[in-house]
This record gives sequence, structure tokens and C-alpha cells, in this order.
Amino acid sequence: MGQHLISAKQLSRADIERVLDHAAALERDSPTDRRSGTLLGLCFFEPSTRTRLSFEAAIKRLGGDALDMGAIEASSVTKGETLADTVRVLAGYVDALVLRHPSEGAARMASEFVSVPLINAGDGAGQHPTQTLLDLYTMRENVGLDGLSIGIMGDLKYGRTVHSLSLALTNFDTTQHLVSPESLRLPRGVRYDLEAAGASVQEHTDLSTVLPDLDVLYVTRIQRERFPDDAEYRAIAGEYRIDAATLEDAKENLIVMHPLPRVEEIAADVDETPHAKYFEQAKNGVAVRMALLDLALDGGGIFAADESGSLADWNEGADA
Amino acid sequence: MGQHLISAKQLSRADIERVLDHAAALERDSPTDRRSGTLLGLCFFEPSTRTRLSFEAAIKRLGGDALDMGAIEASSVTKGETLADTVRVLAGYVDALVLRHPSEGAARMASEFVSVPLINAGDGAGQHPTQTLLDLYTMRENVGLDGLSIGIMGDLKYGRTVHSLSLALTNFDTTQHLVSPESLRLPRGVRYDLEAAGASVQEHTDLSTVLPDLDVLYVTRIQRERFPDDAEYRAIAGEYRIDAATLEDAKENLIVMHPLPRVEEIAADVDETPHAKYFEQAKNGVAVRMALLDLALDGGGIFAADESGSLADWNEGADA
Amino acid sequence: MGQHLISAKQLSRADIERVLDHAAALERDSPTDRRSGTLLGLCFFEPSTRTRLSFEAAIKRLGGDALDMGAIEASSVTKGETLADTVRVLAGYVDALVLRHPSEGAARMASEFVSVPLINAGDGAGQHPTQTLLDLYTMRENVGLDGLSIGIMGDLKYGRTVHSLSLALTNFDTTQHLVSPESLRLPRGVRYDLEAAGASVQEHTDLSTVLPDLDVLYVTRIQRERFPDDAEYRAIAGEYRIDAATLEDAKENLIVMHPLPRVEEIAADVDETPHAKYFEQAKNGVAVRMALLDLALDGGGIFAADESGSLADWNEGADA
Repeated sequence: MGQHLISAKQLSRADIERVLDHAAALERDSPTDRRSGTLLGLCFFEPSTRTRLSFEAAIKRLGGDALDMGAIEASSVTKGETLADTVRVLAGYVDALVLRHPSEGAARMASEFVSVPLINAGDGAGQHPTQTLLDLYTMRENVGLDGLSIGIMGDLKYGRTVHSLSLALTNFDTTQHLVSPESLRLPRGVRYDLEAAGASVQEHTDLSTVLPDLDVLYVTRIQRERFPDDAEYRAIAGEYRIDAATLEDAKENLIVMHPLPRVEEIAADVDETPHAKYFEQAKNGVAVRMALLDLALDGGGIFAADESGSLADWNEGADA
Repeated sequence: MGQHLISAKQLSRADIERVLDHAAALERDSPTDRRSGTLLGLCFFEPSTRTRLSFEAAIKRLGGDALDMGAIEASSVTKGETLADTVRVLAGYVDALVLRHPSEGAARMASEFVSVPLINAGDGAGQHPTQTLLDLYTMRENVGLDGLSIGIMGDLKYGRTVHSLSLALTNFDTTQHLVSPESLRLPRGVRYDLEAAGASVQEHTDLSTVLPDLDVLYVTRIQRERFPDDAEYRAIAGEYRIDAATLEDAKENLIVMHPLPRVEEIAADVDETPHAKYFEQAKNGVAVRMALLDLALDGGGIFAADESGSLADWNEGADA
Repeated sequence: MGQHLISAKQLSRADIERVLDHAAALERDSPTDRRSGTLLGLCFFEPSTRTRLSFEAAIKRLGGDALDMGAIEASSVTKGETLADTVRVLAGYVDALVLRHPSEGAARMASEFVSVPLINAGDGAGQHPTQTLLDLYTMRENVGLDGLSIGIMGDLKYGRTVHSLSLALTNFDTTQHLVSPESLRLPRGVRYDLEAAGASVQEHTDLSTVLPDLDVLYVTRIQRERFPDDAEYRAIAGEYRIDAATLEDAKENLIVMHPLPRVEEIAADVDETPHAKYFEQAKNGVAVRMALLDLALDGGGIFAADESGSLADWNEGADA
């Protein structure tokens, strides 16, 4: 029986709905001693502000506490210790583990060495499943999850956030509009997975043609380091940037999302519009992670009660 | 209604006394579950040991917990995120925020973006109001706050601690003796504010003439980097340094204070005298910050119950 | 009356057994609110992962909380503050202190300035008494502490872990087999102390002759920086390295221990054998530190109830 959350691919529609329902219940009831005496280990091999802090807030809001390995430069890892040893020792101190690592596949590998639940908080270009769950939660709370047109704009090539979200959305009745420059289109592998799941997907290079149809616009950052020269970056980034004027053509109920941090891709004047949901989205990370941790700590597998069988073995369910 | 503490200028005599009374009550009663379930966000854009730790101790002594953004170099701020975005996200995770930032005015600006109480823990050359409150608490517990002669010695030009304290003392019946080299006198702007408040202030270049009259001697560090060459620094620093022998001419009940860390301006042999109160002063930071946090978390403004009206809007009350 | 734990030399057999008994009781009962409201200060002037985290886990498992000074580079220590001042301020915020420092004798010096219990978590080439206690706990839980043959292999010259353990074992009926290259033998001073305690000690350069007799094999890392050139290091390290094949000649109940982190001195295939106890050993650090903290927080000296008198003054008991 699997107990780790490694990949968004593990998540069936029923699994997702169970997490989101539990998050909504926890947000409503604010239990403060549900997990008192519980310790969560935070093992971040890459800098992270919001993911780390929202996991820490989540366990503390549940009445438990966190143990943060801290900056990895200052740790025994610099003495040559393997990731497997590091997580085995930390797992001896805590009741569950959160791991972020720059290498794809690190979370799955690490999960094979520990007997406490391990949650992947991002592994390089790989997966970031808890981000996907909070994205879905934010959509569901605002506009539902079925019958939607969802635009995803920006860097669709390198963003693990986008890959996980796009695949998870195939569990729902949605049409995905992917808006990006040619050079930053969704990778072939992800598109293949989308097709295999029977997803309704359209690709665009220009937001304006599709904007009026959208219920959700998910914006991501285009990174300077993806371009050979600054001028080219400036030109592209300028095209995939929105401001309040851009949104005049949008549906009244359109919500704008962003995994944050943003730099210039959403102008500050959007913050004042009712479309802006990215700060609410960040805040939702706490409730969703509370739900995940609470389910994971029940023992016997995060989704052990699930009769759909889709998560009979979470490890096996993870992508290769 | 104001809910943030940005500047010592916000503090009337009644406000100060309410905080100090509450601190004394909390120190006496040591309640350990008064704020259980509460999360305090620590957002330090500059290194700090005692301020950060005493805020963290304060919320934990109240039964709550802290969420520390950690070293800012290791955070999303390095990806170009604005201060406004950073505090908005963190504010979504917590019930109150403490901010330290190298830029004057940062705390006031940040406070405009958050709906939870924000406490300024130092903004560049600007304000550091919680230091002032713990300084006043230490004086009151030892020698009272009225009818005193208070010496403030060292770098009076650059020290925000001194500026806040000097202004706050105008709420009480005190005579201030400012002792510094000519080049490190109190800035004109602060002296103007003191005069406007009708303060009794005398300036000196030599401690010995005034020492026998003092009830409090507040020593600050003279920083090497303020001087063009090391010899000049050495000469000046040597003159504004005290040891046990210096204090032989002092009143028996004189208390010596220092915001710490000290380097050489107070010799170690002073530690053994009954005059030394700087470690007690540091320790008082916990009780005073417990009181402030507890009042802030009551909602509706830290000093909402204050009928003096001086804090009707804390934001408006802050200095420009 | 002593209240600090500075050196393993302070520990009599009765003292050790009291800590280990208490650790076993705490591990069995898992009390989660025994020390609620208690704050432990963590003052690490050197990087440390497992020692810092297991102290933090220990106080949190007891229902208390920790205050971590964090990376010392980012603190007021860089402004020139003395260790004495730093620990005095931190001691004002907390109920007990844990100190790690690169200089031998730092813990004893610091303990003279604080009125809360201070526990030495390693001072340079000096002492690391809590590591010794968890080592003894691991042995006792697996094979007992009397009538044993204990091999200690690797760098016996520079490892403070080994020195403390070797001396502590003289309280029990054990034979110590010290296995190392000539250049890394136990220092003369430690050997003298062992002789004075009437210890049964044999030195070897080769593990194979003594391995079949051992109940415990304690392996330590040989550090590259101890050798003038890499080739010499490689040759030596290769000789004092074990794998599953090495252990074929060992007793069935032999346990292999290591203070971690390990690099190459224990091959990964040993992990799968029943001999491997080093991860359990790391985990035991939490229970043993819970016991120590709990005894220290009782006030009046960690071992105040001890009638053996061996710890009448812990400070005096520490090595020079």
C-alpha cells in the first residue's frame, strides 16, 4: 500500500475531490489540536519560500510542529552524505517528510528509504503535486472544476507547475487553451499524455483571440535565462504580460491565477480587479497542505480508504 | 482604525503605559496557552539576533508559534519579487507580521498591503518602536519614568534606537543629557521634534560633568565605519567608553543600559556591578513583545480601546 | 550544585543508567505535554544537522519548543559580540541552552555566564557527551553494556566522539579493541585516562584478527584532510572500510554503529544486514536528549538526586 505523494499522476478525480473536500472542511472548522504531538520534517535541497512556509503553517495550524533541516549548505550533506542517508536519519526524528530537490526523480528514490509518509514538494523538472492540488482548489472555490475553458499562458516548456496542472485537469470536463511563444510550447511528452487522456487542448501564440472565452487564466513567469539574449527575452516577455486593460475583454467572472512569485508578467493594476486570485491561491496552499498531511498521517497510505483503486500503490503510480 | 505599529511617534503616554502594564502582568502570570493556535510571521530582510529571537520567544511564550521566512537570500525575493507581494503572501499564512527591512519607510508601505497587524522591527535609519518600549519598561521597573535625569551617550547621529527613545521620553517628566562627540550629535530634525515637544535637553561632549546627576546612562555603540580613519575612531571610541572605575562617581541607583550587542564601549567589569541592566533589558524584550502581540491580536487595532485618540489611526500617526 | 552537562567525564555509571532508564521510559510512554511552555535555545556556532535537529525534535516531543539562533554568520556575533554576551542574552529568552562551538572549552566557559542549564553539543576537539549517551543507549538496547567486546575503528586520533565513548565505557565491564592505522591511534592523553580507569584495551591495525570476537563494531570516518596526499588517504581509507562480505566472519548478533554522516567507510550493502544499527542509533538521539533535557529542566542540577556524589559539581567534574 502506498503512502507517499510523489506525482500528480497518482491522483484520480476521486482522490483529488477527497483532498479538496477535506481542505474545505479544515478551512471551515480550523481545528487547532488535531495533530498535536506530530512532527513534520522539512527537507529542502533548493530555496523555497512559499512552499516551505505553507507546509510549515499547515502542520502548525493542525497543532503539530515542524523540523526544518535548514539551508543544505550548512548541513552534513556537504560532507558527502547521500540523499538516502539524509532522509533516513531525518525520518527517524519525524512523523512525515516533505522533500524538495533539484533532481527529477529524487522524491521517488527517497521514498523507497523511509517508513514515514513522504510528500514531494518539487523535484527539478519533475513533479510538484501539492501545487496542482492548491491550483485545483482555488479554481473549484471560485468557478468550479467542470465545464470550464482554462487558459494557461507563459513558459509552458520548463514549468513543472504547468505540466502537473495540465495533466490533472484531464480528470475534469475542461478545455485547455495553451498560450505561449513557439519556443516555449508544452513538451511533446506532456502533450502525448494529454492526448492519451482524451484532453481537449488548443494551442495559441496570442492571448487576445481566446481571452473572451476563458473562465480561468493561469499565468506563469517567462524566465530570462531561457533566452540567448536580453532583447529577445524582453520582446517575448512583453507579449505575454497582462494588465488591467488586457482584461477588459474578459468574462466578468474570469479568475487570474499565478503560482508566484511574479515579476512583470502581471501588472500591479490587476491586483485591484476582482479577477485577481493569486494571493488567495497562495493562501489556499495552507488548507490544501493541511488536508494532505492530515490524510497522510492517518497511516496506511494517504488514500488507503479509496476504493477506486487508482492509488493502490502510490509509488507505482508515479511517472517514470 | 489603525492596527499596525510603525513608529514610536504613534505612542502617547497612555499607550506606552498600557503596553508596559500588560507586559508586567504577563511577566507575572506567565500564561502559556493564551494565544495557542496563533501564527506570527517573521519577515527579516536584515540579519538580527535578539529582535528576531525575542519576538519568536514572545509568541511561543504566549502559546502560539512563529513562521520565519529565514535568510532572505535564500528566498523568492532573489527572483525579483516586490516587498508588497512578499508580505501579502506571508500575511495569508499568519495572524500577525513582524517586519525588519533596510529601507526607511518599508514598514509603513508594507502595512498598506496586509490585513493582519504588522509590527515594525526596524526600518533602516527609520524607526524601531519595540526597542523603545522595552527600554522604557526597563527604566520603569528599576527607577520609574518621571523625575529622572537620563544620559544617552555614544553615536546619537545614526542610531535609530536613540532617536525613538529620545522622542518617547518627552511623554514623561525627564531631563535628557545627550553625550557625544561633535560629529555624532543628534540630527537637527530629531532635536527640532524634541523642542516642539517641550523636552528638557542638554548636550555635552564629556560624560564626567553630568554623570553624578544621572539616574539612567544609556550607552550606544560608536561604529568604526562612521570614521574616515581608524586612528580617529580609536580616539573617539576610547573617550566614550565606560568601565567600573568610571561609575565610582555615579549615584548608587544609576542603571546602565545598552541596546546590545556591545563591543568595547562598556568594559566587562561593569557587568559585575549592580548598575548593569543591559542583559535584563534584553530579557525584557520578551515580555514587552508578548504584550504588544497580545494587544495586536485582539483585533480592531492594537490600541483600539484607547480613548485618548492619539492612535485613532496608527498609520496616519507614523512619521513621514 | 552543578546543572550543566559539559563533559562525558562527569558521568558515573549510576548517572548514565539514570539517563538511559529515563530515555527508555520516555520512548515507551511518549508523553506529549510534559514540558509544554518550555523553550530550549539552540546556539550552534558550527554547522550540524543531526545533533541540532534531534535536540529540536526532543524538546518538541516533550511538548516544548525551540529557539534557534540560526546560522551564526547572519547574527550579531559578526558585529564583534563575545560568546559570553551572546549566551547571556539567549539565556534570558529560554529555559535551557544547547551549545556547539568550534573551540575546545567553549561550553565550560559559557556555562559560567548563564543561570539556565547548558548542554554541550560539541566543542571542537573537546567533548560531545550527548553523542556518548546515545551510543551507550543503542548498545544497551541491543546487546547490553556489560561483558562485551567492543571494536572501535577508523580515526581514533581526532574524533571527539571516540574519545568520549571510550572513556565512558570504562564504567562498564567491557574490553575495547581499538583498530586504526598507526598515524591515527588514540592520543596518548586519552590512553592514559583509560589506563588510570583500569580499562581493558587492545590496539590493532587490522580488523580481521579481532572481528570474530566483537559484540559491537563502532566505525568512524577517516577524513581526507588528515593526509598529506590523496593517494595515501585512499590507501588507508580502503583498509578501514567494511562491507557485507567483511561481516561474514562476525558474530550473528554483532551490531555495527557509526556516528554519521558516513561517506564510504560502510558500504551500502551493510544497510540490509541485521548488523546495521546506525540509523536506529541516530534515531535514539531523540529519546536520549528528551531524557537529558527533562532531567535538566527539573532544576537544581541535572543529577541533583544522585547520591553517588560523582556529580556534586558538574562544572568541576569537566575535563580541563
